[in-house]
Amino acid sequence: MNKIQRLIVQSAFLLIAAVVVFTHCASPETDQELTELQELALTFTEPLPEHAFEEGMPRSDELIDLGKMLFFEPRLSKSGLISCHTCHNFATFGADILPVSIGHMWQKGPRNAPTVLNAALHGSQFWDGREPDVESQALVPILDEVEMAATEEHVIEVLTSMPEYVERFREVFPEEENPMVYENVGVAIGAFERILLTYSPFDDFLRGDAAALTEEEKEGLRVFADVGCQSCHGGPVLGGNAFSVFETPAERESGESDPGRFDITGNPMHMNSFKVPSLLNIAKTYPYLHDGSVWSLSETVDIVAVDMLGRELSPEDNSSIVAFLHSLTGEVPAYALEIPVLPPSTADTPRPVFD
Amino acid sequence: MNKIQRLIVQSAFLLIAAVVVFTHCASPETDQELTELQELALTFTEPLPEHAFEEGMPRSDELIDLGKMLFFEPRLSKSGLISCHTCHNFATFGADILPVSIGHMWQKGPRNAPTVLNAALHGSQFWDGREPDVESQALVPILDEVEMAATEEHVIEVLTSMPEYVERFREVFPEEENPMVYENVGVAIGAFERILLTYSPFDDFLRGDAAALTEEEKEGLRVFADVGCQSCHGGPVLGGNAFSVFETPAERESGESDPGRFDITGNPMHMNSFKVPSLLNIAKTYPYLHDGSVWSLSETVDIVAVDMLGRELSPEDNSSIVAFLHSLTGEVPAYALEIPVLPPSTADTPRPVFD
Repeated sequence: MNKIQRLIVQSAFLLIAAVVVFTHCASPETDQELTELQELALTFTEPLPEHAFEEGMPRSDELIDLGKMLFFEPRLSKSGLISCHTCHNFATFGADILPVSIGHMWQKGPRNAPTVLNAALHGSQFWDGREPDVESQALVPILDEVEMAATEEHVIEVLTSMPEYVERFREVFPEEENPMVYENVGVAIGAFERILLTYSPFDDFLRGDAAALTEEEKEGLRVFADVGCQSCHGGPVLGGNAFSVFETPAERESGESDPGRFDITGNPMHMNSFKVPSLLNIAKTYPYLHDGSVWSLSETVDIVAVDMLGRELSPEDNSSIVAFLHSLTGEVPAYALEIPVLPPSTADTPRPVFD
Repeated sequence: MNKIQRLIVQSAFLLIAAVVVFTHCASPETDQELTELQELALTFTEPLPEHAFEEGMPRSDELIDLGKMLFFEPRLSKSGLISCHTCHNFATFGADILPVSIGHMWQKGPRNAPTVLNAALHGSQFWDGREPDVESQALVPILDEVEMAATEEHVIEVLTSMPEYVERFREVFPEEENPMVYENVGVAIGAFERILLTYSPFDDFLRGDAAALTEEEKEGLRVFADVGCQSCHGGPVLGGNAFSVFETPAERESGESDPGRFDITGNPMHMNSFKVPSLLNIAKTYPYLHDGSVWSLSETVDIVAVDMLGRELSPEDNSSIVAFLHSLTGEVPAYALEIPVLPPSTADTPRPVFD
């Protein structure tokens, strides 16, 4: 028996060593010359980082695991039915692909739910930018009465009722006397979101692989830059930073437009102003615009070109840009697609309240 | 390079061969003697099979994959929000751990949603047994106006609108001229459910490992059998076959009891009659009884012992039985926990309707 076990270990080592050598030999040149188009793209964007943690932020596998559990935890909501994942479903690229979300008691949210994928790299959170980061963002829908309709006390009572959560919070926040505080729910969910980055063919292109885009996609990238889309849709997630005044065709038609950022700042300059959305995975995160009123990506491109750039696109240019936008679709991280099995409720766990 | 590649292949083969030999040598004795308690248990139950497909049933990995996609597909519902997984959440053992489910327009279902885990091994489906198998069961909530509120036409329109689904249906049902029919949705979802079996310590015990149960759990098994629980809770899933007349304490108090199976058969003998639930994963699939009105497993054991067996259990016997019931908790299959990424909607995909 020992002989066989030794053989396994030996051959496994041999295999690993050989694979390492092979992989190294096969790795692409990193000092290859960039094409002009790659250089152009790198003037307004950059490859995605490995994760979105900033220097000095709390970060551990245990924290991320806890954040994932909380993200999938329906008992954080008043009804016990709605979790973050209800509206940010990884089966559909971290969004709910609905015009606006449905929350507690079937109430409609006021705006389209953006995807959580790459959200941690946005300059601010929500369409109106009212939260600075994913940690603070995550705490808002849990308490919003049209979303999860909970209270901070409810959330803490739920988590404290289950020994597994208590233990995990202790492990993850070892220096805190009482780690079971609402803010830490955001810290954990935020940490989970900071690894939800999606690497697309365009990302490969930016990293040096000029063949990662098709000719049509490259032509689309050229048109994108010619027309000036990158003036708002720049940075690592192609958007997510600046704010623009924007009224959707549906709002114009109805005469009822969303005040947007004005509601947060009270500054008249911010009336109808919204954060420019990221374009990563845009082909998968329909419907579009802050009210989710347009389903077609092509139509959205035309609307935005006219409204924001005063440009009527030719059908060819429109379809080139749409082709380029498809190259921004990445892979949903496998870790996010694995549902965590949650700890069982106890006698102390608050019961669901449906109204 | 070639040398290294050859080395990889050679060492990989060596590794596989060694693992095969090792695994074979390490496999447990299968002809060990069973204890009396194991023999007793095997008089009323048996180890779970590898899957729940019956001879001659359509079965392939592609069919199961398609079934999983449909299980997670919110666009089958009228609102585009609710999928099978909404109420049969694998994070919480294939159930929604709510008294009754919440469906379209926040309507409440009339009864507690049973877990889909091991459901394929039940003798019939639903609390009132109105469907014979998981294939026919799966088709009902999709059309129920208080659940997913769709129509057959809606479902087929949704699936036909996405080329990936059309291709998958063609591959999976190659002999059918038009495989995009509603019945096949049930065939696929049913196939997925037929692999959702959970293997528990009790299952190991039945397979010959007498040490798989703790002494307390073994004592619980003895009491379980002494008291007579197995007269209804027998068979591979410890229930799921026979029907019993049963009124919950909440129903007795309110004076409004659920007609149960009578509504299906019209037979007065079936008034207030319900399928005996399976006990597998019972510690994880609270709340209990057909109206989900009792949250405590211990309390449920007492209620059922008095009502069905006329037995007042001592606190010791109650806690022994509860300990045994915990040994019926298995593992949620890893395959079920992997969320499938769904194909994108097209211009032809019906849009969500919220009311």
